[in-house]
Amino acid sequence: MKPSKRSHVPAFQVMSITDEIARRRLAGHDVVSLCAGEPSARPVPGTLKPAGYTGPLGTTPLREAIAGHYRAWYGVDVDPGTVAVTTGSSGAFQLVFLAAFDPGDRVALASPGYPAYRNILAALGVQVVEIPTGVETRYQPTPALLDAAVAEHGELAGLIIASPANPTGTMLGRAELAALADWCRARGTRLISDEIYHGITFPQPGDPDPRGVSAVELDPEAIVINSFSKYWGMTGWRLGWAILPPALVAPFEALASNFALSPPAPAQELAMNAFTPETYAERDAVVEGFARARALILDAAPALDWGTAAPSDGAFYYYSELGPQLERHGGATQYARALLEQADVAVVPGVDFDPVAGDRAIRLSYAAGEAAVAEALERILRFQAG
Amino acid sequence: MKPSKRSHVPAFQVMSITDEIARRRLAGHDVVSLCAGEPSARPVPGTLKPAGYTGPLGTTPLREAIAGHYRAWYGVDVDPGTVAVTTGSSGAFQLVFLAAFDPGDRVALASPGYPAYRNILAALGVQVVEIPTGVETRYQPTPALLDAAVAEHGELAGLIIASPANPTGTMLGRAELAALADWCRARGTRLISDEIYHGITFPQPGDPDPRGVSAVELDPEAIVINSFSKYWGMTGWRLGWAILPPALVAPFEALASNFALSPPAPAQELAMNAFTPETYAERDAVVEGFARARALILDAAPALDWGTAAPSDGAFYYYSELGPQLERHGGATQYARALLEQADVAVVPGVDFDPVAGDRAIRLSYAAGEAAVAEALERILRFQAG
Repeated sequence: MKPSKRSHVPAFQVMSITDEIARRRLAGHDVVSLCAGEPSARPVPGTLKPAGYTGPLGTTPLREAIAGHYRAWYGVDVDPGTVAVTTGSSGAFQLVFLAAFDPGDRVALASPGYPAYRNILAALGVQVVEIPTGVETRYQPTPALLDAAVAEHGELAGLIIASPANPTGTMLGRAELAALADWCRARGTRLISDEIYHGITFPQPGDPDPRGVSAVELDPEAIVINSFSKYWGMTGWRLGWAILPPALVAPFEALASNFALSPPAPAQELAMNAFTPETYAERDAVVEGFARARALILDAAPALDWGTAAPSDGAFYYYSELGPQLERHGGATQYARALLEQADVAVVPGVDFDPVAGDRAIRLSYAAGEAAVAEALERILRFQAG
Repeated sequence: MKPSKRSHVPAFQVMSITDEIARRRLAGHDVVSLCAGEPSARPVPGTLKPAGYTGPLGTTPLREAIAGHYRAWYGVDVDPGTVAVTTGSSGAFQLVFLAAFDPGDRVALASPGYPAYRNILAALGVQVVEIPTGVETRYQPTPALLDAAVAEHGELAGLIIASPANPTGTMLGRAELAALADWCRARGTRLISDEIYHGITFPQPGDPDPRGVSAVELDPEAIVINSFSKYWGMTGWRLGWAILPPALVAPFEALASNFALSPPAPAQELAMNAFTPETYAERDAVVEGFARARALILDAAPALDWGTAAPSDGAFYYYSELGPQLERHGGATQYARALLEQADVAVVPGVDFDPVAGDRAIRLSYAAGEAAVAEALERILRFQAG
């Protein structure tokens, strides 16, 4: 008995690098990791109540609180009945893909991009259409790139966008997002907007959209996915949400009641204090720390001499080609391995994010904060000079 | 844009009845629920640490502790490397089905049975082969029934068994389970054994298998699925596990790293104290309470006059046809609705569990305990006499 054909998806390499880091630390190495997209975890307040199942779409108070967050941040009304609380954004992606797409449907996404989109879709029999992007479009899809994809592959059932994006941190402005939403509406293509890095943004003073632009502001038929993991630092709790077009609520709920029963209840209890002025202030202070760590990397860029990099508008990622280091090491995977073995600094090669051109690039996560980034940069420069 | 065809799965009715109960309670009704398969939740000890992602298969200490549980309860060695911690047993089912089966594969299961098996498989494109069962085989499949299914439908890629089963509570003895394992091995059919109600059992003194027989004792190629929800009363935490054949570990891990990233970390921390003598004793005391609630129902059976019922060997379910009540109300769904509206007692009609014959039967959950069951029985008898 063999594993299924559809289980032949690549593992998310970040997760195995995490294992390797754990092994090296156990062996006494002082490893600095710029690897995981994971802010330091938020403290857990006092005591949690014993927790039973909730409804498959989460508790009513939490769904209402999430709708309130859209009023607070984006000035938009969201019907709490269209909010589905999920087991992390991962739980949202799989159920949204199941609810929206049938086997053989074509769904487009930018490359480089978050690998789980591609791998979940592939395991569910959906045909992934990669849109190769580069610095000229800030690593984001555009209507012209989508037209080209349709010409090459045929009509698209869906488009997944991410702003700020993983691994590049680039963002779509209001006009760019509106153009993509218009394109999708005109074509009958479902727009799925991954907004899990909203709030981890580095706006200029006076920016009218300091938290990011939500697709729900522009199109009631868009599907928005978000999470308590990143801005709120609750990765391990596994809690996220989706905002669904009304016609998708019932099918999504039916799938959720079978695939998940209920999102984690203690996490839902904890998340009820996510939307207070105190919590927003606490998390904005964390984001200021990311901003300082980001500045260190941008300042070091000339000395690193890696060449083309994405602008890192938001999230806590810096994605860069490797320039001269590429020739010296033969590829980003080899570079990352040598850097870990010789300098105890963990970074992620781009192959997770871009199966075609990713081995020319690496992703640094500065979620670990200023001190870790400063130490890592020093080690990297020493490693490259050695 | 329409929902996908594969999202046309029935919602799990228990979950919508749960909503209806909440509405009635809000309106001031004193509802007794024999509805959810949910023991009262276990208290949460002291303080949990802030929680980040763990590995996609869970923490190494928890995987080792689970392997230790198999030595303690079943006297069998399990390699911790084959234990995958999951987001509830739900998280295990979806990933096991993806890892083991391709679209079009045929997988058999007993009817009546847990509806999510059928609905997850259907959404993933797997062809469900229902094995109609009745009291003559204790609502369990047998080699003869499987032979008949193969003759009618063709070879089976998989068989899902559950012991104790939901909704009937019936169990497979060692010889019966061995016969099914042998049948599967001879046919190249994957055996998936749902053991989430193990430990919620009512053995006679001297029973050599007081906790249930695990398929892992009989066949290293079997897939075992279990959970911290039932025996350990941790439903809302969403934590379960699978024991996988070695060849399935890597594909399962690749899928888990994309579909889930990591099972919930705080739940994993809490589960680390699940396997102490103190916790086993605490949980066994809870099971004694289920035994008392079960005895109340069995004693009341003649007065209820419902006719054929499953023997309720384990779990906390009593599944019975409705006898004369069926004619009076027209079906189990109508009976359950009238009982809720007129007597504020919630039970689940069998249609969730058996799309063909289920509307002749209801499931009582006695997880709510002795007092709730006593009150419910009194109201049911009054309702039926009225």
